[in-house]
Parts: sequence; C-alpha cells; structure tokens
Amino acid sequence: MGFVWWRLPVGLPVLDPLGRFNVIFIGIWPLRFPGVLVGDGRLGGISGTISAYESLKLRGYDVVAIVIEDHGLINEIPLKSYLRSRVPVFVLPPIPQDPSNDLMEWFDESCNVFNSLKDIMLEAYLERMRRLNEMPRKAGDVFWWPFTQHKLVPPSAVTVIDSRCGENFSVYKVQNKEYITQQFDACASWWTQGPDATLQTELARDMGYAAARFGHVMFPENVYEPALECAELLLDGVGKGWATRVYFSDNGSTAIEIALKMAFRKFSSDHGILPELLKNNPTESCIELMVLALKGSYHGDTLGAMEAQAPSSFTGFLQQPWYTGRGLFLDPPTVFMHNGKWTVSLPEVFHSATLKPEDTTFRARDEIFLKSRDESNLAGLYSLYVSQQLSQYSTLSETNKQIGALIMEPIIQGAGGMHMVDPLFQRMLVNECRHCRIPVIFDEVFTGFWRLGVESAAELLGCVPDMACFAKLMTGGIIPLAATMATDAIFDSFTGDSKLKALLHGHSYSAHAMGCTAAAKSIKWFKDPYTNLNITSEKSQKMLLRELWDAELVQQISSHPSVSRVVTLGTLFALELQADESDAGYASLYARSLVQMLREDGIYTRPLGNVIYVMCGPCTSPKMCTLQLLKLYTKLEEFTLVKTKMNIN
Amino acid sequence: MGFVWWRLPVGLPVLDPLGRFNVIFIGIWPLRFPGVLVGDGRLGGISGTISAYESLKLRGYDVVAIVIEDHGLINEIPLKSYLRSRVPVFVLPPIPQDPSNDLMEWFDESCNVFNSLKDIMLEAYLERMRRLNEMPRKAGDVFWWPFTQHKLVPPSAVTVIDSRCGENFSVYKVQNKEYITQQFDACASWWTQGPDATLQTELARDMGYAAARFGHVMFPENVYEPALECAELLLDGVGKGWATRVYFSDNGSTAIEIALKMAFRKFSSDHGILPELLKNNPTESCIELMVLALKGSYHGDTLGAMEAQAPSSFTGFLQQPWYTGRGLFLDPPTVFMHNGKWTVSLPEVFHSATLKPEDTTFRARDEIFLKSRDESNLAGLYSLYVSQQLSQYSTLSETNKQIGALIMEPIIQGAGGMHMVDPLFQRMLVNECRHCRIPVIFDEVFTGFWRLGVESAAELLGCVPDMACFAKLMTGGIIPLAATMATDAIFDSFTGDSKLKALLHGHSYSAHAMGCTAAAKSIKWFKDPYTNLNITSEKSQKMLLRELWDAELVQQISSHPSVSRVVTLGTLFALELQADESDAGYASLYARSLVQMLREDGIYTRPLGNVIYVMCGPCTSPKMCTLQLLKLYTKLEEFTLVKTKMNIN
Repeated sequence: MGFVWWRLPVGLPVLDPLGRFNVIFIGIWPLRFPGVLVGDGRLGGISGTISAYESLKLRGYDVVAIVIEDHGLINEIPLKSYLRSRVPVFVLPPIPQDPSNDLMEWFDESCNVFNSLKDIMLEAYLERMRRLNEMPRKAGDVFWWPFTQHKLVPPSAVTVIDSRCGENFSVYKVQNKEYITQQFDACASWWTQGPDATLQTELARDMGYAAARFGHVMFPENVYEPALECAELLLDGVGKGWATRVYFSDNGSTAIEIALKMAFRKFSSDHGILPELLKNNPTESCIELMVLALKGSYHGDTLGAMEAQAPSSFTGFLQQPWYTGRGLFLDPPTVFMHNGKWTVSLPEVFHSATLKPEDTTFRARDEIFLKSRDESNLAGLYSLYVSQQLSQYSTLSETNKQIGALIMEPIIQGAGGMHMVDPLFQRMLVNECRHCRIPVIFDEVFTGFWRLGVESAAELLGCVPDMACFAKLMTGGIIPLAATMATDAIFDSFTGDSKLKALLHGHSYSAHAMGCTAAAKSIKWFKDPYTNLNITSEKSQKMLLRELWDAELVQQISSHPSVSRVVTLGTLFALELQADESDAGYASLYARSLVQMLREDGIYTRPLGNVIYVMCGPCTSPKMCTLQLLKLYTKLEEFTLVKTKMNIN
Repeated sequence: MGFVWWRLPVGLPVLDPLGRFNVIFIGIWPLRFPGVLVGDGRLGGISGTISAYESLKLRGYDVVAIVIEDHGLINEIPLKSYLRSRVPVFVLPPIPQDPSNDLMEWFDESCNVFNSLKDIMLEAYLERMRRLNEMPRKAGDVFWWPFTQHKLVPPSAVTVIDSRCGENFSVYKVQNKEYITQQFDACASWWTQGPDATLQTELARDMGYAAARFGHVMFPENVYEPALECAELLLDGVGKGWATRVYFSDNGSTAIEIALKMAFRKFSSDHGILPELLKNNPTESCIELMVLALKGSYHGDTLGAMEAQAPSSFTGFLQQPWYTGRGLFLDPPTVFMHNGKWTVSLPEVFHSATLKPEDTTFRARDEIFLKSRDESNLAGLYSLYVSQQLSQYSTLSETNKQIGALIMEPIIQGAGGMHMVDPLFQRMLVNECRHCRIPVIFDEVFTGFWRLGVESAAELLGCVPDMACFAKLMTGGIIPLAATMATDAIFDSFTGDSKLKALLHGHSYSAHAMGCTAAAKSIKWFKDPYTNLNITSEKSQKMLLRELWDAELVQQISSHPSVSRVVTLGTLFALELQADESDAGYASLYARSLVQMLREDGIYTRPLGNVIYVMCGPCTSPKMCTLQLLKLYTKLEEFTLVKTKMNIN
C-alpha cells in the first residue's frame, strides 16, 4: 500500500466564465499525518507535555507517540502512567551539550528510539489507511442510514469523511490510487452548519470546558450558567420583541411537537374549551383540533410533527400507518427567479383574478419583502381567500373540527424543495389568524440564525409569531439542541395550582450544558462584525448578512435552459432543473448525474428530487461562495450537453 | 458581600445506624476560586502558556488572568492577541537572579501587577456571586421548564447548580450567608448519568477532539470513524447475538418512533398487507395497526411514542389533544420487596388462580430471573392470558384492528413509578408474539447500559427483541444520542428498488460525531474492569455489576412502616411511600417534605409521585451508595415522625 495522495495543490487558481480570477488556499491539516510530540524531559516538563498533547487533541491532531530527552528526571514514568493506553512515551539519551562533540555516538544510542518512532508512525498511518479502505463496506453492513434506500448505495457510492474543517469535508477516495480530497459541504450537513474553521476550534475548546465543568445536569426547577446565558441570548436575538420564554428540547421535530401542544392549550383556553374540559373529564373532548398549514411544508418526522404536514411520500401507510393529516393545507403562492426576473407564481385558485404586472413581478428581490405590498390588490385577494378558508371552521361544524394553530416555515419551505413562499401571503395568513385568535407558530428550524441572511426570518416577513421553533444552526452546527420560544400569553395558559396543568413534555437532555454553551458561543459569533465579516448594519441598525452569491452569476444561471427556477437568499442558493413531470418529485433520480459531477469537482451536494442547492455558513466568504457557483455553472453546462446527446440518441 | 462558604469539611465521617463507620473525601475544586495562570515568558513560552490555559479549561477551571515574567521576549503580545477578549495578560519585571539581591525593589516594581491581579480575581469572584444570586429569579423569568408547574416553584425553590463533578452537583445556596454545598445527583439527571469524575474529564478531552476533527458531518450514505466505531460497539454489546443494524437518532422518543415504523413495516410485510398496499394506493389502508403494551409503561413525549402508551395524566386532551391510545394495554404483574421478602403482585385477572407459594415469593432476587420458572404453573397462566388477548386480533375484526408490534420496557418501568414487571410475564409475552409473528420492541432507553446491573436488560429477561431503543446512559450521560437497533429481517423489509420503500425518517444530527465519540468511550469504559471497578465476571463469563446497595440496609428500609415496597437492581434503589389513595399518583405532593429533607442533607432527588429513588452510575462505589441509603434511612425516620405528629394533631 503506498502513501495517500493529496489531490489539490496548496494554491488553486480558477478562471471563471465571467473572466475573473480566483485563488483558494488550503492547508496540510486534512492530510492527518501521524504526529510525534517532542515533550519536555526537564523539571516541570510533565505538565507541559500533557498540556501540549491536549492542545493538539483539541485541534484534532493525532499524536501517536511522545518523545522526551533524558534529563535524569524520569519524566517518562508519570507521563506513561497518565497517558496509559493512549500514547507510548520514548526517551532519547541526553543530547551532548558541547557542540564540538561528535554526535555519531548519540545517534547510535538513539537509533532504537528513532526506529520505533518510525515504525509507530508507519503503523498508525497504515492502520488508518486500512480502516479507511474497509469503511465503505463496513458502513453498508452495520448502518441503517436515514432517508436512504440501501440497495441504491453500493460501497463505491459511500463517501468516507476523514475530517471536516469549516465548510469542507476531507474525503478519502480510491480511484487507481488512494487520495484525500476536499469537498465543500454544499448541503451544510442537512442545513446544520455554520462554523468556519476558527469557530470550529473555539467551539471545541468551549465545549470541552462545559463538559468538564457541568457534564450534563438536570434542568427542571434548576438553573446553571450555560442554559441561562443561552436563553437570554435567544430572547435578546431571535425572540426579541415578542418572546419571553424558552422551552428547550433536542431537535426540530420535538420543538414542533412542543409548540403544537402550547398552541392547542392556548386555543382551548381562549375559546372556552378548557374550562369545560376541566369541569368534566379532562381526558376526553368532542372537539377535533387541526392546524392551518401550507402544502409543501415540512416540520419533522415524529408523528405529531408529521400530522401537521400535508399528505406526501413521507406520510403514507408504508411509512407511518398512524398518519391521518390533521390540517387544513393551503396551496401557497411562491416566488422565484427565472431569466433574471423575480416572479410570483399563483396557485390555481387565484388564476381568475385580475392583477397588475407590478403585483407579481419585481425588479429586485428586496421588493418582494416590502411592507407597502400590503396595500396591493394581491394582498386583498390573499386575505379574502384565507378568511374564507377559516370561516368554514369558525363555528363548530358537524365534525366538530376547529383550527387550533397556524404553523408554517417563514419565507422558505426547505425540505419541500426550497420554495420561497410569497411573504405577503404569509403575512396575510398571520393577520387573519390573529383576527380569529388562532395561535401562530413559525417553524424556523431551517430558516433561523442567518440562514436567510437575517437572524430570524420573522424580520423578513415583517410580523411576529406566538411561538417559534429553532434547532439546526442554533449550536453553530456542532451538536443537537432545539428551542421552542413563546410569549407570556402562551405560557400563562399553563400556569395554575396543579402540576397536571403544566406542560408535561420533556427530554432527558433538555438544555444540556454542552449544547447551550455551543449555542451561546455561536449566537454571539455570528452577529459580531469582528468575528463574522459578513455582518453589515443598515442605516436602520438592522443587522444583515452581505450578499454572498454573485448577482451576475445568479442571473446567468437563472437564464440557463436547464434551469426552471432559482431561489437565492442569505446562505442559500437553489435551482430547480427543468424536467418532465415523470422526472420530478422527491424520489426522482433525474439530478443524479449532475450531483455525481459536482462531487467529483469538490462540491458535496444532496439533491431534493430535481432541486440542487448550495448552502454556506453565515461566515463563509463571498469568494468561496462564488467559487462554488462557478463550478455549478460549469457542471450544469456539461450536464445539459450529456442530456441533450442522450435525447438525440 | 462576603466570601462564599464551603459547607462540608474535606473529610466527612458518618456513623451509620448499623454501627459502621464511613468517611467520604471531597476536593476544593467545586469552590471554583478564580485562577491566575503563571505563564512562561521564556523562549517557547507562548505555546506552553496557551496549552496550560487550555488544559485548565479542559478540566473546568476558570482562568481569569495570566501573568508572565519579563524575559525581554514580549511573549505577552502574541498571548494577548491569541487570547483576545478572554483573559488579560500581565508582565512582571525580571526576577533578580542573584539571591543576595534585595527583592524589595522588585516588589515595588511589581506592585501594580499584583494589585491588578487581586482586583481581577476579586472582580471575577464578585461577578460570579452576583450572577449566582440573580439566577433563581432570572431562571423563573425566562425558562419554561419541562414537566414543571412554574407556580409551584418560587425562586427560593430553584436549585442553582454551579458545577458537577462525577455523581455530585455543586449547589449554591443562600441561607443567612452564601455557601456552596455538594448534592449527590440521586435522580441521575433524569437517568442519564454514568460518569465518575475521571470519565467526565476523559469525555471532555475526547469530545473536544471530535469537535475539532469532525464538527458534525452528514450521515446518510457517508461514513466516519466515530459513527462506525460506535455502531460496532453497540452491535458487539447491547445488540450482541441478535441485532445487525444501527439507526441513530436524538433521544428515546425519536428512537421509539423509528422502532414503531420498523415494526409496522415488518408486520405489514409478513402478514400480506404490504403487497396489497403497493399494488393499490400506498397512502391508504383500511387496516388499523396497534401495539401490544403494558399499563404503566412510558416511551416518550412525541405523539407517536405517546400513542403506544396507556391513557394517563400525560395523554389527556389537556396535554395532547391528538392522543387516541393506539394499543391493547395489559395490566402487568409486578415484583417488589416488602419486609425483606420479594413477592409477585398479580393483577386482578389472575386473582382466582390457584398457585403455589414458590410461584410468587422468592428467597432472593436472583430467583425472580431464573429460566426454570418457565416450567411453573404461573408461566402457563401468563401464556394463556396473553394468547387469549392476542386471539381477539388474530383475524381481522370488524374494526380491522391488528396488533402490529409488542413494545415494553424490559424488567423496570421507569417513569411509571419504578415498577419491576415480573420477567416471567414479559418472557411469555415475547414468546406469544413470536408465535403470532408480531415484531418485538424493547424500550431500553432507561434500562440499557448497566442501569440494571447488566449491559442490556435483555440479559436479565433471557430473551431478545427484534428491535431495541437506547439513549440516556449511552453517551455516558454527557450529550443526547439515541439508537434503534434491529435485526436483518427487519432491515430487509425496507430494501427495494425505490427510495419510497426506504425508511424516510431522520434528524439533522443523526450519528453526530461528538455523541458517537462519547458513546464509544463510555461503552468501553463501563465494561472495562480496569476503569470500572464494579465490573465482575461470573463463572459463565457474563459480566455484571457487583451489588451496589447494602443488602442489610435495603432489607431494613423495606421493613420500614412508612414504606410499602422497595425495588433495587443494578444502579437503582427505589421505595414507595405508604400513602392513602388520595396521596398517590404522579401529581401527588405527599413526598415533598421528604424530598426537601434529603436535598438539605445533600441528596438531590426528584420524586415520581410518592416514589423516591436513588440512582448512581455504573462506576459509583458501593461506599458512596451506602452513604446515600444511610441518609435516606435517617430522613425516612424524621419524615415518619413528622407525619405521625401531624396525624395526631
């Protein structure tokens, strides 16, 4: 077995189709050569050596041996005892002090040690190679990957990730010979990622501290610094101006289940269902509560979260026999760019309406979010439609169904295919629900924490919810943690004299110290212009991310014959491939060859059917984003060529 | 504001009621005095100082300032730049080399630095005290604690946790004056805890490494070392002999939802429901699948997990309007110790049966688990009962209901009140379900990883499941991670040519590197006799934890007039207080005063209604366990005295 190859040169020049020149630099770190720590054999050298070892570990280095010079203090004995099974410690004979001395004798005496070190390094290296080589097969044997048809993933299709540094994976590959290459994590590892390389190191240290100081401690009725600081930052950030309470859980799905329980209690309390319930048997009611939600929305995979979604491939008997779909699901108007222009696409129900062109087309993306649109004809149409829909449930119908909550992803529907919903429609939805005293939930699991260029997507929407759910990017993308935030009015519907009136939902690791520490760090990091160079302040003091995707290139891609639409906002760039009806949808393999080309060119993407997206972190440089778009553009051309050829043949 | 007091002396002698003498030792670490790091101003001192700083952080120390001696190398400049906002760096003038020199001049020159250090330490200390003092009120203002009626928790009842070390919290209190005291975490922070102080430090370092090397990376179709190692250890440990696949998720509740989806697919496939479905519309079926489950069981708080539980305070309209209870819920026979004897308590349905005394009483706890009980009359009775219950659903009834899965917590029902279910009954349940080709799920979220003295509770039960769910202790108690393990037969019912046949369920942080690293470390740590002194190997090579709870003391408590039953197994000791019907149940406040007494005596408990339990980690010394039981015994006496007095008055 030969030594692994490093495929990319240290400086990589790229000429883009617009004639501009870019260079990216990469370090030697991803090669992960086994390290030997030269420790200290002098007085005080034991702790110094251990500390150096720990600092290297905290930066992800692999120390396979320690070597010290013999100073007659037998530092190796406590070192060996402390490091036990982890790392061998070697001692070199004292280095001759007199420079005129012949070193040959010393080299002779040291020969065995140097040979051992060489053997250990080689052994560690070969062991890692052996392991990397067997990984694809072993993974296929023992893992059960989520959302994966194993039959479609042979060992050759498994990506072996050897490390990550900021936005990039180091991927081990075998093609003729073994090599390590870098891939830009364009799916942000299921939309969780935020750290640049510096933040990743900072998080490693801070979380080590949190683990040592707190481990995990019980949350209910207790308080500890990381949880309190995290809650305060959330309330002063994504919850500013409306939320007063933070309910911690583990992931987006649990955060949604908690929000639904909150909303239904509040609705029951506001609409006189609760007193009646408490009087009679509290376990039964003839009322069936539903959500108002949007088609194409996605809120998680646990049953409660699924029930708030419209029927889809994910919800059938085959996947979840208990799913019934407890909602009124409306078809939302969406907005996208095509041929360089942003346009609203209206669902069928609005097709007969007479509208002015300025109601549905925009010169610039910012116009889509203008509050002045509330005065447009379209706003009136949206409002009327929603109120008509709600009126079916305003009095108890025969089925006793009532809409007990509005739930939606503000601005962008992620898993549904990266659709931008017309913010005007969502604002009208919120207004109408407020009018009917229906609690409003924003699912910001995907959209929160700068994903869309602002800390909370509510800022883009121009209205606030009663509850909002956050997860994914909240910890900077390092560890699971979720929060359901709520107003005092929601909270108050759970206070009383009995524990049975409290919200009886919780997870073992609620508000775990490491998660809260990572969240507190990341929340501060992302919005500090000193650590995040993308932060800009508008005149109005509202903080935004600067534009990360090259405007010209975005326009060009939106005009590409293979592209039916483009959506770009904050850290997200998405395109939908022009495809026949039969090639669309979640299970479509249409985009497969393009994805393959992109991966080979260093972009790790995962398609959503025939939607391809590239996502960066809030701190990623526009230069790095442009490089990815350039690659995407080039591969799109290749892909189109191949498809055209196939059609001709 | 004065300095905080350290309430416990360093060595604490305790005389127990059985006349034995115990001493526990505790360190000064929990006082958390602000530290000053004396760095190195010499050549090479920059990296050494940074490493020392990081080693202290990795052990949970707070370094508030760094001071170095001036060696003319201006080490302070790179140090300040590197540590930026975190820690100030001071420079002392060179220390006179000649010992005959008068040091007074040096002290004069250094005076400002020493004054600054004193001010910074004092400031840091006072700031921490200020923060600790405001924490209870702030917590009550911003948190929404799970399972907590906030109205019952005034600021004075909030526990301020300043740090944790192994099994103990450091708790900050104000009573006349401020002090820090230690509390044994007897609820193991919702049953998650496993680390002793050493493992906690090891986890801190290893997780720091995982964060630096991997951060979090995408799991589906990928492989990376921590996930693979963790899966291999799970299959070679808790899944040994039956499981072949690992499905990662975030917590017990999600692991259960995944297991249910697996079971229903397998059942549908085995019973001819699937081919019919795939032929027709896959989103609809006239068949309603249910679980077979036990009353008093608890499987989590998301809707799918709740549906598999019998109706209770947690499931009513007030808490979850969508709950319907999709199960056949059987009343299980339980086993407990009373007056020093282990006895089976049979539900009403068995009351008319004629049984021998040896069927329902045991001389020692081990007898309860003997496989030879399968030949008893009781085994026959159990079997018959279960098969009768199942037969109602064996052919399609009018309602089209079918039992599609058996789900249960093996041996101990945790949240339901620490009830030991007769393992014979559970074994017969599994046998009967196998007979009807109903997939079997073990919910080992609570019972797994040595909680009950063996790595998997299946070992005690003497039979294996088709799927099992693990979480809580899996990571040693540091971070959320869950696994649903399954057999190949289950896995195979999801393979096919279409992605739509795959299990479409997943969470963003599936198999996150830090969780898998912690799990791999803890799994190995707990079962290695070198790191866990409680591990004993029987002749049969089966590994067990030694008995942690003093047998004499357990017997004595089980005979106490205030105690109606005791259950002790592995790391668990539980007792139920003798109470009237009106004082029993989840919302009961009956145990409140006892809990208060225990907390004041250094045991942090959280009652389950009128059940009090003390739980330790797999590595906790029997000495430490005995100390807690002694305290519990003493407080039980006090509690009884007070209750008796109240009744007399």
